Amino acid sequence: MKIALDAMGGDFGPPNLVAGAVMALRDYRQINKLFLVGDSAQIEAELKKHGCNDDRIEITHATQVVDMSDRAWSAVRRKKDSSVSRAVDLVKRGQADAIVTAGHTGAAVAASTIKLRTLPGIDRPGIAAVLPTETNVFVLIDAGANIDARPEHLLQYAFMGAVYSRHVLHYKNPTVGLVSLGDEDVKGTELTKEVFKMLKPSSLNFVGNIEGRHLFEDPVEVVVCDGFVGNVILKTCESIAVAMFQWLKHELMRTTMRKAGGFLARNAIGTIKDKTNYEEYGGSPLLGVNGICIIAHGASTPLAIKNALRVAAESIEQQVNPHIVEEIRRYHETTAPLEPARH
Amino acid sequence: MKIALDAMGGDFGPPNLVAGAVMALRDYRQINKLFLVGDSAQIEAELKKHGCNDDRIEITHATQVVDMSDRAWSAVRRKKDSSVSRAVDLVKRGQADAIVTAGHTGAAVAASTIKLRTLPGIDRPGIAAVLPTETNVFVLIDAGANIDARPEHLLQYAFMGAVYSRHVLHYKNPTVGLVSLGDEDVKGTELTKEVFKMLKPSSLNFVGNIEGRHLFEDPVEVVVCDGFVGNVILKTCESIAVAMFQWLKHELMRTTMRKAGGFLARNAIGTIKDKTNYEEYGGSPLLGVNGICIIAHGASTPLAIKNALRVAAESIEQQVNPHIVEEIRRYHETTAPLEPARH
Repeated sequence: MKIALDAMGGDFGPPNLVAGAVMALRDYRQINKLFLVGDSAQIEAELKKHGCNDDRIEITHATQVVDMSDRAWSAVRRKKDSSVSRAVDLVKRGQADAIVTAGHTGAAVAASTIKLRTLPGIDRPGIAAVLPTETNVFVLIDAGANIDARPEHLLQYAFMGAVYSRHVLHYKNPTVGLVSLGDEDVKGTELTKEVFKMLKPSSLNFVGNIEGRHLFEDPVEVVVCDGFVGNVILKTCESIAVAMFQWLKHELMRTTMRKAGGFLARNAIGTIKDKTNYEEYGGSPLLGVNGICIIAHGASTPLAIKNALRVAAESIEQQVNPHIVEEIRRYHETTAPLEPARH
Repeated sequence: MKIALDAMGGDFGPPNLVAGAVMALRDYRQINKLFLVGDSAQIEAELKKHGCNDDRIEITHATQVVDMSDRAWSAVRRKKDSSVSRAVDLVKRGQADAIVTAGHTGAAVAASTIKLRTLPGIDRPGIAAVLPTETNVFVLIDAGANIDARPEHLLQYAFMGAVYSRHVLHYKNPTVGLVSLGDEDVKGTELTKEVFKMLKPSSLNFVGNIEGRHLFEDPVEVVVCDGFVGNVILKTCESIAVAMFQWLKHELMRTTMRKAGGFLARNAIGTIKDKTNYEEYGGSPLLGVNGICIIAHGASTPLAIKNALRVAAESIEQQVNPHIVEEIRRYHETTAPLEPARH
């Protein structure tokens, strides 16, 4: 399999990205080719630091980078030679099977949507983030691709999330919840009330509105929301997990007895810390585009990039796109056409 | 001081509410009168269970309860004799200084807005939730009062949050952040972009857009967002804290060594657990109404209700409303009039 890595995007640029690529090539033999897309001089310098001359690497030179201050859609139009655009081009031309990027999420979504197009029946792609609970993992969709979501987009996210849960996470009949203000049918925004009406009669295992407490205490398997809310949930969860371990560490350092306790309990704490560490998840698939695009965290460490490349490799093996197309087709066959969107 | 407690609302009804009231009367001598509003037979039965005949209690009979399935504004119009409406009436008539309710949040917001009206210069009230970080607490506003927020509402929340932070939490010049998708100016929804433009030139100590990671890792003191997003953040934080301690407990039970470690470290874990336990906070003020209304958690335990009554007593002492009116007046004096809202 062949993967194109945007070697420029992300808060830390080529050093972390190339280091992650080197780690991935060492561990994942199934990667036959890894395109490193970006400034070739910088990429070569980083490879040299690692003493890496793996012949599976192919550098694809790109002269531009999408900055975090760029606007997503205009960046794709204006910066034609950006690393993320060039990486997507490789997939478009069939030279690569998947893209991985830690850069500007909006630009990655825009480039993938413009160049690869969406799957039949899908209007907007959504990011499917996988989050851990004690006993479970769940899919949060959309975790930040589409902040101006319409009801039909959220309906499509529900189907895509359920397909992902079934085919990748192996939940048989995943429960689907809609993020709202309370679990009663009448609660929520105009958007969520509209989506509720669409999800209720669908073939999905829809449990209704959910609140934050259903995320971790009484978890559902697919959590549906718009990209703004999803991104807030994702970032809040990451932040609070990191902060609580930091806090625990400081509290454990206060007395000798606590230090001893922390030492004896280190494996218990470590288990949870590893499971809640986003670096272990690496990246989230952008579902709904006609191709495979993995969105990694902007602040990705080399380990996170390595794991994002693993997610890309798994996604190439799993091929969820045909299942998404089939589910959406079946939904439209069995359901009266949607009312035209009101703008 | 005199407080009116909605003795019917909340997931557990009179038993928890009356138990919390009894605890509060025991500890807070500054409460001269506590109205328990609701079904008098049920309230009396609960008081009897606690052997409580404190003469500061006055039962105000109300025949109706707003159910969680009621729609907020119509519930206030239709159920004129609901416990929450009657409790607000006591404040309206000057018989009580503050209301505390754990019932339907939307109904409490609607009843307070309709009966008490908003403060001059404030269009919509917002819930100010106080959340802990390791080194800090911050105000999250709006935590769920107003889900159809317009830009000027969020601007007003920023001012109210800053007043609360200054006068109640004693931060000198609190930093204010706007919840968005990234910290760059160009990111966000139409709503947040509009609010950004208003906050930037204001007299507030505005630090710009913030993401979830700024909540706990690099915290600001006032976090501004619409009520849907704020409620999602609040509930997610509560849920994840509860879930992580549960998880840690299970991991610590797995081996004898871990059990010993957990025992020695119990005070470290307990410190964090207490600080993140919403029961200790009790309730959040609904800022912007011409009166004092404290919104408690629907699932409030007696301890949470006791603490919500403490928050009400503190709010009566602190009187932030005149400061809010003054700040908003000064803002309008120094700023060109807002464009009319577009609908």
